[in-house]
Amino acid sequence: MELLKERHFPEDIKLLLPQQLEILAEEIRHLIIDTVSHNGGHLASNLGTVELTLALYRVFDFPEDKLFWDVGHQAYTHKILSGRLRDFHTLRQRGGLTGFPNRKESQFDSFGVGHASTALSAALGFAIARDLDGSSRKIIAVIGDGALTGGEAFEALNNIGDLQKDMLIILNDNEMSISKNVGAMSTYLSRVRSYPEYNRLKKDFGKMLSSLPKIGSRVFKTAEFLKDSVRNACVAGALFEEMGLSYFGPVDGHDFAELIPMLQRVSEIKGPVLLHVVTKKGKGYEPAENAPSKFHGIGKFNVEDGMAPSSGKADVASYTQVFGKTVAEIGDIDSAAVTITAAMADGTGLKEFALRYPGRFFDVGIAEEHALTMAAGLAAAGKKPFIALYSTFAQRGYDQIIHDICLQKLPVRLCLDRAGLVGEDGPTHHGVFDFSFLRQIPNMTVMAPKDEHELRAMLYFMHAFEGPIAVRYPRGKATGVKERKDNIEYGKGEILRQGDDVLFLAVGTMVYPALAAAKMLGENGISCCVVNMRFIKPLDEALLKILLPGKKCLVTAEENVLAGGFGSAVLEYLAQSGAVIPKICRFGIGDSFVGHGTRVQLLEEQGLTAEKMATRIEDLCRA
Amino acid sequence: MELLKERHFPEDIKLLLPQQLEILAEEIRHLIIDTVSHNGGHLASNLGTVELTLALYRVFDFPEDKLFWDVGHQAYTHKILSGRLRDFHTLRQRGGLTGFPNRKESQFDSFGVGHASTALSAALGFAIARDLDGSSRKIIAVIGDGALTGGEAFEALNNIGDLQKDMLIILNDNEMSISKNVGAMSTYLSRVRSYPEYNRLKKDFGKMLSSLPKIGSRVFKTAEFLKDSVRNACVAGALFEEMGLSYFGPVDGHDFAELIPMLQRVSEIKGPVLLHVVTKKGKGYEPAENAPSKFHGIGKFNVEDGMAPSSGKADVASYTQVFGKTVAEIGDIDSAAVTITAAMADGTGLKEFALRYPGRFFDVGIAEEHALTMAAGLAAAGKKPFIALYSTFAQRGYDQIIHDICLQKLPVRLCLDRAGLVGEDGPTHHGVFDFSFLRQIPNMTVMAPKDEHELRAMLYFMHAFEGPIAVRYPRGKATGVKERKDNIEYGKGEILRQGDDVLFLAVGTMVYPALAAAKMLGENGISCCVVNMRFIKPLDEALLKILLPGKKCLVTAEENVLAGGFGSAVLEYLAQSGAVIPKICRFGIGDSFVGHGTRVQLLEEQGLTAEKMATRIEDLCRA
Repeated sequence: MELLKERHFPEDIKLLLPQQLEILAEEIRHLIIDTVSHNGGHLASNLGTVELTLALYRVFDFPEDKLFWDVGHQAYTHKILSGRLRDFHTLRQRGGLTGFPNRKESQFDSFGVGHASTALSAALGFAIARDLDGSSRKIIAVIGDGALTGGEAFEALNNIGDLQKDMLIILNDNEMSISKNVGAMSTYLSRVRSYPEYNRLKKDFGKMLSSLPKIGSRVFKTAEFLKDSVRNACVAGALFEEMGLSYFGPVDGHDFAELIPMLQRVSEIKGPVLLHVVTKKGKGYEPAENAPSKFHGIGKFNVEDGMAPSSGKADVASYTQVFGKTVAEIGDIDSAAVTITAAMADGTGLKEFALRYPGRFFDVGIAEEHALTMAAGLAAAGKKPFIALYSTFAQRGYDQIIHDICLQKLPVRLCLDRAGLVGEDGPTHHGVFDFSFLRQIPNMTVMAPKDEHELRAMLYFMHAFEGPIAVRYPRGKATGVKERKDNIEYGKGEILRQGDDVLFLAVGTMVYPALAAAKMLGENGISCCVVNMRFIKPLDEALLKILLPGKKCLVTAEENVLAGGFGSAVLEYLAQSGAVIPKICRFGIGDSFVGHGTRVQLLEEQGLTAEKMATRIEDLCRA
Repeated sequence: MELLKERHFPEDIKLLLPQQLEILAEEIRHLIIDTVSHNGGHLASNLGTVELTLALYRVFDFPEDKLFWDVGHQAYTHKILSGRLRDFHTLRQRGGLTGFPNRKESQFDSFGVGHASTALSAALGFAIARDLDGSSRKIIAVIGDGALTGGEAFEALNNIGDLQKDMLIILNDNEMSISKNVGAMSTYLSRVRSYPEYNRLKKDFGKMLSSLPKIGSRVFKTAEFLKDSVRNACVAGALFEEMGLSYFGPVDGHDFAELIPMLQRVSEIKGPVLLHVVTKKGKGYEPAENAPSKFHGIGKFNVEDGMAPSSGKADVASYTQVFGKTVAEIGDIDSAAVTITAAMADGTGLKEFALRYPGRFFDVGIAEEHALTMAAGLAAAGKKPFIALYSTFAQRGYDQIIHDICLQKLPVRLCLDRAGLVGEDGPTHHGVFDFSFLRQIPNMTVMAPKDEHELRAMLYFMHAFEGPIAVRYPRGKATGVKERKDNIEYGKGEILRQGDDVLFLAVGTMVYPALAAAKMLGENGISCCVVNMRFIKPLDEALLKILLPGKKCLVTAEENVLAGGFGSAVLEYLAQSGAVIPKICRFGIGDSFVGHGTRVQLLEEQGLTAEKMATRIEDLCRA
């Protein structure tokens, strides 16, 4: 780590000798591998951008020039170079560096990010502002080929090609989003990659054309058109040229000798330029090169073999695994069941279904909007779609859930993984809004399971259900409680504990903590009735009607924002029914964005542990 | 109307002589003009698709074959041909035909719609289901060049080009979305349109190439590539070919002799086909041809001159006009003010700003996601963006509002027009979710004005405000009340009437009806305190703390769904503060999608008139 320690970055990057750049790249690569092996994080994508980032810092002047990382899961080298080397060991830890660019963290982070396909839009905003201000700063956006399949990126390209602002778009083409890329754009890019002589050919072919004999008037009448067309045809990246961008590349994203001169050259070109850079996910770390999907987002691992350290809880399945197994079983018994993911076949656990029923599995790329409307189309055509998304990414398809699914009352089964607090990925990735934004839509049914067995039962319930329906479940290991068969009835909760003083209504991950809290309160003489509501919508009003009378205190608990969430649904019922309860306490996420840290830390911070809930309820009861 | 009356459609369309088709087109055109002149509706887009729809019905077998209209504002001819001629005079009226395709209305409507860019996704869902079922039905989607700029359409194209399902995409290219189209795609299409000889040339040019003398080894080494490239170059629509679609066209969308044989031909081609059809918005009705934007969505008009009938209220400005005028004034005083619209410069009233400050006005096309992130970029770069969207379309950018704007606390000013019940456009267009989905996001401020003067004051307040902030206001004429200067203070409501029995908290359009209801109640001996809350978030808790004690009844009123809306925010405050009010009544939109009809009818139906509210409050107080 000599160069990293002894030199000052970013300034010194412009002073290094070429061979020192190579050494620096190796040092950074080791630092990233080492840090991620301890803290977890995005490994493969960050190893892919080491040289690219160094080359960008070599050619441009940050933070005066503005750099935009799409998704932001490839910005570790950028963090290391921009004054955050000393804190890099705190990556993704509570109070430490965030895993993504973040405006609060550094002025080198022009724009915060975490979701895909936003960088071009943000960069265009900066380019417009720069021109209004008469400044000459450079604007550079780095976007992966995966993120390019997101509709917002295309919307931005359409606008960028039109406005013709000076900006450099670097297409970081690693043939992967998280899973292997899919889609026509991906096929197109691999076609482009396979013709590295494209740019050289352009000149030759032009010459050839000008030496042609005359061959008939109809052709020459439109000579102008032909010239244009041939020019485009002979440039790799005709598709981008047609959209109004100047295309350059492809260049090797790990070769400074190619990369730096090319960046210098394109930085002088007027108008929007797209530079196609080919990189390798996991570059320089064999386990990650061989399994980039596994090393996309990863927990602790042993550097030597890339294996995760064995944990005591290794036999407990994750919610994702339970989902994957169950939906594959449903596929076994019903050929009308189809599954859809937006570039998350691994992450959502749909791999098993995909292996068994490849003809009924659809990975549409990073394209939640399309995924949801297509699911609605499949449902309208008589199929039984299960669409698996992370809760935070489902926000991308909010309008489609309203306009295509719920308005038409189509039986699309929304399976929202990573709901609630996700931990180390932080505020861009917490899935804490879904109860609120789903509950407000007419015709929607919303469930959350207390454990893995209830998740299984709910998935079977969804399979048979004939309207829009969602289930949300958290990241990570399930509870490991003993196997059990649940019988899910539409809109019905289950009483888990009887009690007279407090009515404690919990959903999803809050059910077991609610039970634990009730036990503690019971030991202190406060008797709690605990209900696992199961359904956030519709609310089990019949049960509430029975249980409310005589209770001194009503408590709700959810891993969702308090504004408009499950607890609010209960308040709405109270107001409407005229029921009066002297004391009310709602547990949930407060009205500010939650940072990063372990799930345990964050739940504690939000007061969502059994102990904290018990204390607050006791205080309230005694007050 | 002889053919329309005497023949049976859709069957007979296949039996008509060519000249009868022309006559039928004229009859339909007259019927559409006549009906829209009475009922209002989408005129220009529907006049553009008369021949195209007839040709589709001539060639395909609906409803066995499946037809998908994007946006759906061009489907009147489709409605007329598919058994709805007799009811066509009820178009857009309460209880009558809807203005858009609707699965509940007819089996010919394969998929309901209203928002743009969804048809390709839905059609792909049906194509997948068809192949799983082993059926051979044809799948046809019609999408405008405007809707094609929406990111979801690109996401779908990316997937369609990959899956290679048999389906026909008709690009209905009229160079317009609602305003004149913008963007690189639009430039591209006009380039394609200007070379009508493209397809003929393809053959000639191919011949020419094969007759070339050998001109050097480097070129011939890559002969395979050249063949591909030249093929693409010589096909208009290289961009679509690169995406994996077979491109045909452009053809004249008003010429049966071109259109019908072409449809027959492409219907036999395997894999996804894009047929580029050029149509004219407003075709056959001179006032609409000359001003297609004005005749996009229009109220009643005189057929002779296309002018709107004069109304007594003509001197009252619309909320849209007040917004447009005010934001242009803000542009006068602050060169940092920039405005953004997503293809709605006319509809949102930004035309005036655009005329005065074209360099600070951005129409990004139908692209709400990009628009919102770009606004965030502009704000991060120090500009003061006002982004004007219809409330219902803002749903498209929900994730961007969370992830790009609110998480980074960027001062983007969301101006949401057409909020609440929009009337005749019906359920796809009502903007009744925004209080709920905005209020749940941390860092967001949400306002609604009671009238046009308060809207002005709020816009000036937003200009000076330094965080994410939204204002929402309804479609149509403002109140016409006497001009007045308001002083908006952050998070503060205003007491409009004092009273002891009832505390009536109202927002936006419900404020004047609340006052009227209070007057009626007062005459019946019930004394109401009426507060215009102005801010949905943050809630004026200080004011509530003062006003709540001693009140027997608490009433809230909003033109938003009750689930998670303004009234729920008040309930959340009550629960948290421990305040006890014996009786609570929340007015708002119930938990089902609201149909179409006049705004007056729909508000009445939802119980949101002064009379209905007064009656219900009185009943509650006396109970």
